[in-house]
Amino acid sequence: MAFKIGLLGLGTVGTGTAQILLDPSGRNPLLEEIVIHRVGVRSPDKPRSVEFLSGVMTTDLESIVNDPDIDIVVELLGGLEPARSLILQAINHKKHVVTANKAVIARYGDEIYAAANKAGVYVLLEAAVGGGIPIIKPLKQSLGANRINNIIGIVNGTTNYILTQMTLYGADFDDVLAEAQQLGYAEADPTADVDGLDAADKIAILASLGFGGKVKREDVYCEGIRQVSAADIIYADKLGFVIKLLAIAKGSRGEASETLQLRVHPTLVSKTHPLANINGVYNAILVEGSPLGQVMFYGPGAGAGPTASSVVSDVMNIVAILKSSGPVQTLDPLLSCVHQHYCQITPIEAIETRFYARFLTEDVPGVIGYLGTSFGQHQVSLESIVQIGFQGELAEIVVVTHNVCEGNFRKALAEIHSLEAINSIPSILRVL
Amino acid sequence: MAFKIGLLGLGTVGTGTAQILLDPSGRNPLLEEIVIHRVGVRSPDKPRSVEFLSGVMTTDLESIVNDPDIDIVVELLGGLEPARSLILQAINHKKHVVTANKAVIARYGDEIYAAANKAGVYVLLEAAVGGGIPIIKPLKQSLGANRINNIIGIVNGTTNYILTQMTLYGADFDDVLAEAQQLGYAEADPTADVDGLDAADKIAILASLGFGGKVKREDVYCEGIRQVSAADIIYADKLGFVIKLLAIAKGSRGEASETLQLRVHPTLVSKTHPLANINGVYNAILVEGSPLGQVMFYGPGAGAGPTASSVVSDVMNIVAILKSSGPVQTLDPLLSCVHQHYCQITPIEAIETRFYARFLTEDVPGVIGYLGTSFGQHQVSLESIVQIGFQGELAEIVVVTHNVCEGNFRKALAEIHSLEAINSIPSILRVL
Repeated sequence: MAFKIGLLGLGTVGTGTAQILLDPSGRNPLLEEIVIHRVGVRSPDKPRSVEFLSGVMTTDLESIVNDPDIDIVVELLGGLEPARSLILQAINHKKHVVTANKAVIARYGDEIYAAANKAGVYVLLEAAVGGGIPIIKPLKQSLGANRINNIIGIVNGTTNYILTQMTLYGADFDDVLAEAQQLGYAEADPTADVDGLDAADKIAILASLGFGGKVKREDVYCEGIRQVSAADIIYADKLGFVIKLLAIAKGSRGEASETLQLRVHPTLVSKTHPLANINGVYNAILVEGSPLGQVMFYGPGAGAGPTASSVVSDVMNIVAILKSSGPVQTLDPLLSCVHQHYCQITPIEAIETRFYARFLTEDVPGVIGYLGTSFGQHQVSLESIVQIGFQGELAEIVVVTHNVCEGNFRKALAEIHSLEAINSIPSILRVL
Repeated sequence: MAFKIGLLGLGTVGTGTAQILLDPSGRNPLLEEIVIHRVGVRSPDKPRSVEFLSGVMTTDLESIVNDPDIDIVVELLGGLEPARSLILQAINHKKHVVTANKAVIARYGDEIYAAANKAGVYVLLEAAVGGGIPIIKPLKQSLGANRINNIIGIVNGTTNYILTQMTLYGADFDDVLAEAQQLGYAEADPTADVDGLDAADKIAILASLGFGGKVKREDVYCEGIRQVSAADIIYADKLGFVIKLLAIAKGSRGEASETLQLRVHPTLVSKTHPLANINGVYNAILVEGSPLGQVMFYGPGAGAGPTASSVVSDVMNIVAILKSSGPVQTLDPLLSCVHQHYCQITPIEAIETRFYARFLTEDVPGVIGYLGTSFGQHQVSLESIVQIGFQGELAEIVVVTHNVCEGNFRKALAEIHSLEAINSIPSILRVL
């Protein structure tokens, strides 16, 4: 008996998925039992690099999620609608769902998993985070014995490519972005990537899995990389750091007062840290837990082939369950999502972190003293304060703090900003 | 209803496993349904850092594998016997088995999986390779959509620690080994580690999973690190390499003439390669497949906590299946092992690889010419041939080849060895 899938979307990832399923030799033999029954597309006349028997392709996406012959719906449309509605319809028709759609899951995961649990179907999403990197299933299944303390990821390939190019060539953000758009590594509207929104979707999903609670997407504090300048990258390098856009979920599993930090921002990462060497469009996710210690998952974070690899693995996973247990009676608790409570989120002002800040000041005596005093008055302890050089008439000073409370740091900055000798504060970055 | 496990062995990993199971808060809630029913030890009076109710501990290991109340037997004895017999008995009593025992699985996997498939029970072994790194389940479940081409691992922490120390401090093998033994990173009898046998067990297991066939442990070609000298590490460094003990499985999935290379040996790895930066007791496994590309899994390759994390994840996995499907009717094909055929293995003489070789020669004119000519006559194409310096009266020459057939290279070496001008060939290493 073959298992029938309905594919929604035949873009890059949809095509990659079909190519694997249509050419199973040399892969897991389970793939030979999977048939693409229907494919839903929006533009039927577009030239495609995969071919289907006539009648397989349709523009009527609803007919796929309602088709009684289909066991598994694979949603690869992207975007919020109609993806969300079609996923919910598929679930209500008792179809298992595989999706690569981080935006829908990060925003409507609650609604989708409630429906899936009620219908007794799986919604798997390995491809939604880290492209081809196995991270969702390992986090659910293999690391669950641990108290997870940290999940820190480079989960957006576009921004990692831009930052890597800026680091290698001393180039400015705008120039590298334009080049990345030409090469197809960044979209015409790069907002979701460069402003950190895509990374925020992904860390919301990972945090929910790692910390065992629901996460509201809007609770993720988010800064993109537009403000990162070539100058900061050079100063970071001199201080022994590289700058990476990190998505961070940090908690204290097992403690009564547990709250979760959830944030995406450009971050100075020590060159000796495992994440410092993740370059170009590659992604990596570091998970820290007890008693495990640190593990890191590294690989291609996007692209047709890697993402399709994850999509098909989810399909295989469901087929393997259907083959071994028959129709699902009770969902496997390690593959479903049964969180009841929402994670408590630490407000950004209350987090403790190290900071890097760059100041432009008048070239008058005592400026470093003013800065030091202001920080000290707000309990901000400094690791270093260095006058790097001059920009025209202005002195350029870089400060790195010890671990401090973000709220105190911000208060000190506000005070410093009002000092007459301070011209501007072009960069404020966190340090891992 | 609680699920009952019987623990065989209460050494480092057994104790770590018990500690997780006895203190489940903040971990996956499934752990609260797991009870340690019996613990089998060999020395009941040894002081332990975990406590059990009286009657839980026993020296009668057979009574555990026969106990009708026990659902899952966790074998953490290590060694071949009685581990193998107890695993088989547990299986015959329809108990699922979780083991960290790479030696038993690499040698008796065939017998054990045949019994398990007949009995309809799972034998899971996440902890057998890579300690706390999730690699077995990802390879079975998440990467199965790919045609796997390469699995390359640093899978032995002891040798990686020794090589890292030799690299950092220019120290010699024997000194670092003695220090590692003092620190507990190497055993009193270091044979299994330093001669590559442990790594060979592990790559045999990974190859079987990645390439979908049975693997005979004795088919793994194996060289340890005893011959690696401080001098080679320094020359490798100058050439842009670090030396790592790699376990390699290399195939060509999907091709009719598919054969598998299976080998463990010290290897020159380019400093820009992801495996080059894996240092100390850490492990990493790189998997290359199509259409995925490269993914790498990195983490602590040994130790009580990390290994116990993997052991408990396997226990949870079985409990999750029992909870959702009830008694197993048909095994999940992604979690069981159903290979019928043995992988065809490429003899070591037939592999193609790059080589590094170091020669001590008389200081006479024309030696480099002799070397070049001999290699050329055996179709061994050279990338570089450099006289590095002198050792006493003797000239020291280092050769790096292009990709060549190992058999041809060996023939050239035999010829070169017989040349009068050649004093000795202290090192022959492969290059990744």
